[in-house]
Amino acid sequence: MLHNDQLSQWDRENFFHPSTHLAQHARGETATRIIRTASGCHIEDREGNKLLDAFAGLYCVNVGYGRQEIAEAIADQARELAYYHAYVGHGTEASVTLSKMILDRAPDHMSKVYFGLGGSDANETNVKLIWYYNNILGRPEKKKIISRWRGYHGSGLVTGSLTGLELFHKKFDLPLAQVIHTDAPYYFRRTDAAQSEDQFVAQCVASLEELIAREGADTIAAFIGEPVLGTGGIVPPPAGYWDAIQAVLRKHDILLVADEVVTGFGRLGTMFGSTHYGMTPDIITIAKGLTSAYAPLSGSIVSDKIWKVLEQGTDENGPIGHGWTYSAHPIGAAAGVANLKLLDDLNLISNAGSVGAYLNQTMQEALGDHPHVGEIRGEGMLCAVEFVKDRDSRTFFDANDKIGPQIAAALLAQGVIGRAMPQGDILGFAPPFCLTKAEADEVVAKTVTAVNTVFQG
Amino acid sequence: MLHNDQLSQWDRENFFHPSTHLAQHARGETATRIIRTASGCHIEDREGNKLLDAFAGLYCVNVGYGRQEIAEAIADQARELAYYHAYVGHGTEASVTLSKMILDRAPDHMSKVYFGLGGSDANETNVKLIWYYNNILGRPEKKKIISRWRGYHGSGLVTGSLTGLELFHKKFDLPLAQVIHTDAPYYFRRTDAAQSEDQFVAQCVASLEELIAREGADTIAAFIGEPVLGTGGIVPPPAGYWDAIQAVLRKHDILLVADEVVTGFGRLGTMFGSTHYGMTPDIITIAKGLTSAYAPLSGSIVSDKIWKVLEQGTDENGPIGHGWTYSAHPIGAAAGVANLKLLDDLNLISNAGSVGAYLNQTMQEALGDHPHVGEIRGEGMLCAVEFVKDRDSRTFFDANDKIGPQIAAALLAQGVIGRAMPQGDILGFAPPFCLTKAEADEVVAKTVTAVNTVFQG
Ligand SMILES: Cc1ncc(COP(=O)(O)O)c(C=O)c1O
Ligand SMILES: Cc1ncc(COP(=O)(O)O)c(C=O)c1O
Repeated sequence: MLHNDQLSQWDRENFFHPSTHLAQHARGETATRIIRTASGCHIEDREGNKLLDAFAGLYCVNVGYGRQEIAEAIADQARELAYYHAYVGHGTEASVTLSKMILDRAPDHMSKVYFGLGGSDANETNVKLIWYYNNILGRPEKKKIISRWRGYHGSGLVTGSLTGLELFHKKFDLPLAQVIHTDAPYYFRRTDAAQSEDQFVAQCVASLEELIAREGADTIAAFIGEPVLGTGGIVPPPAGYWDAIQAVLRKHDILLVADEVVTGFGRLGTMFGSTHYGMTPDIITIAKGLTSAYAPLSGSIVSDKIWKVLEQGTDENGPIGHGWTYSAHPIGAAAGVANLKLLDDLNLISNAGSVGAYLNQTMQEALGDHPHVGEIRGEGMLCAVEFVKDRDSRTFFDANDKIGPQIAAALLAQGVIGRAMPQGDILGFAPPFCLTKAEADEVVAKTVTAVNTVFQG
Repeated sequence: MLHNDQLSQWDRENFFHPSTHLAQHARGETATRIIRTASGCHIEDREGNKLLDAFAGLYCVNVGYGRQEIAEAIADQARELAYYHAYVGHGTEASVTLSKMILDRAPDHMSKVYFGLGGSDANETNVKLIWYYNNILGRPEKKKIISRWRGYHGSGLVTGSLTGLELFHKKFDLPLAQVIHTDAPYYFRRTDAAQSEDQFVAQCVASLEELIAREGADTIAAFIGEPVLGTGGIVPPPAGYWDAIQAVLRKHDILLVADEVVTGFGRLGTMFGSTHYGMTPDIITIAKGLTSAYAPLSGSIVSDKIWKVLEQGTDENGPIGHGWTYSAHPIGAAAGVANLKLLDDLNLISNAGSVGAYLNQTMQEALGDHPHVGEIRGEGMLCAVEFVKDRDSRTFFDANDKIGPQIAAALLAQGVIGRAMPQGDILGFAPPFCLTKAEADEVVAKTVTAVNTVFQG
């Protein structure tokens, strides 16, 4: 086994980490943490620290760590056939089977799944398909994509433009012109405190209508949204939001993309967030939950309506000029098949619903009245605690005070991983679906301690 | 085991394949081929057909199929820790070790590696980093990327724009405005047949200079190129090309990105194409060869010069807002470590050089004088045969005659996979590095038969 010191040095000298302060890391000012093994909801690093991961990696290890059923499926596939491509109608038993399993679980009006690697490239595929769709339909001007402030849809140039968070735009010249943003459905942060939830939804709708009128409906191709805002703060939509938004989209012939990278395959306690909220999307983006991150695999599930036009497109123009070398990679497909099977066999989605509700309720009871807690919210196995400077006037802390990161650090010091969401002082939880009530209790108790430490410290 | 008929039906009903005629596939007009297992240079489908894969998947299974050393490394990693993220300085033994192994093999002036999933997303990262770099340096206008006609750099919106092939632009509104194209270094297809190779290179340089003058050097950030044009036709550069191009780039302070997705880790018989041709890139893109496709993993290797500015950027702006959930995925990292070790242990890069030379020479001897063969060219374990209507006048076939695809089909009918390159009548070969001379002989003999079948048919 390699020495930790040696590994840390190699790390600092060679490894460009994502979403990291590169200079501090290279100078050795921040800790590297090298993870060695993991099981259930716990990960263990090479120093022997064992941590309860209440964020499931990056809300992706939905079935929990160390599932040998998935590991063995991956191992078998690697031994038999680690790779062949899926171009020009090629496949493997795993990839074909998985395509069937996905469509069996997706809403009825969905037709086919294109396989990618991660959530970002799946949304990239979506934008390409949407542009192609409108070109085939003879509407070359109908191309802009509406996204929402605080949405997260990826980190590429176009997908980072869809993302509506400052951290991902700053210094990268994003968003690009093809993407425009509308309001985040974030009732807690409404500007007018007196507004009811209904009034707030009406305002979101009016604001979207205005944007469409200003740009011209004939220039707008699609609207993309996560059923529940994720990285933007873990914010379930206000009641009636999706119905009202969809009415506007239908009126202007604007496609709906449901980005279910976080919500797909059970995180809300139901198979898809779309069904959970009565959404009828034209495309559904899937990634994390598809394999529980055991191997990279994502997908774009397209509806009958889209597929029909894609068929027309290839009849008129020949093979579609889109593909990744690793589309439908056999290892990812094998992991996906085993993962979806495990979700069923262990009844994990139902557990996500019930233990998730327990986590949210317990957190509410423990911290709901805290003077610096503005809101506790969640849905299924998602929970967020938002901190405020003053509860009654709903004033927020200065970002430079780093209250969210401080609380996450105080929680980590007790061996529990929560995530300080990137914009606002929001502590997020998205545990594996196998979380037990005892583990939920531990998360809540240690969060209380962390909150008290920071605010009394 | 599932019945083939059942699988084929599921396939047609649910699976959206990359680079496929979607309508024909869904109607069942084209064959699906479901691959079951593979070993060495051979793959086997579920009908029992065994094929010699002289394109190594999509020029990616460099070490050959069925390598149990890599399969076991993947299996071990899957059992111990299938996933943890690499954000905020996290890593695993495999990902840290691999970062060190990559930098040990890369040219001396390279500094760090960012891990992605596929070649497209790695080039997407590159463009993001280049824009960030010039923003940090206070040159917000210096952003355009120059690519070459016939280059292939991916299939996303920006990366598909870098790609200079019609199939990938048509109906997708590409290229986007941030990308501009210059001449392909394709001597065989020069317009003036009388031109010498030197004169042709001088023309490529003049044409690049003109483009830069027209756009303004202060608007141009980078130039991207494959050391050897791949999907555009497998075209090694004319002598002196890279030296001459690099002189222009240096003069105008334009970064060079070497896209080594195909050439990286040995395909030219040397570790990197950059060293092979005396290129000094600021960024090197790696993917296929990094893991021999056993698991998805790509990378952007950045130079000291770039890294220094990235450090400055994070000191000024905080953590870099870029990351994929699956950056440095443990399964890909484990595959990468095992793959690079295997390349060394079995001396496969040297074999790629020697058997590749043998393949090219044998092909030249067998078909070099054929009246419909315009050129046979290659480098290392890459070989292409380009067909022409008339050899002396160098006239080409009409694309609608589909001569390239016909010859590839006639070759496949004999059990050998070559690839009809997408633009022009070019039959491409890129076998695994473990190809034997006997297998090379088989490829050549069957190519001769295929050529004769089509032209005498
Ligand atoms: C809703 C959503 N979409 C897309 C993505 C991007 O996925 P990836 O990081 O795999 O590219 C994420 C990642 O967190 C996400 O939460
Ligand atoms: C030179 C080059 N760059 C980039 C890519 C894109 O890689 P991927 O298909 O993994 O996205 C390819 C794929 O063939 C390639 O040949």
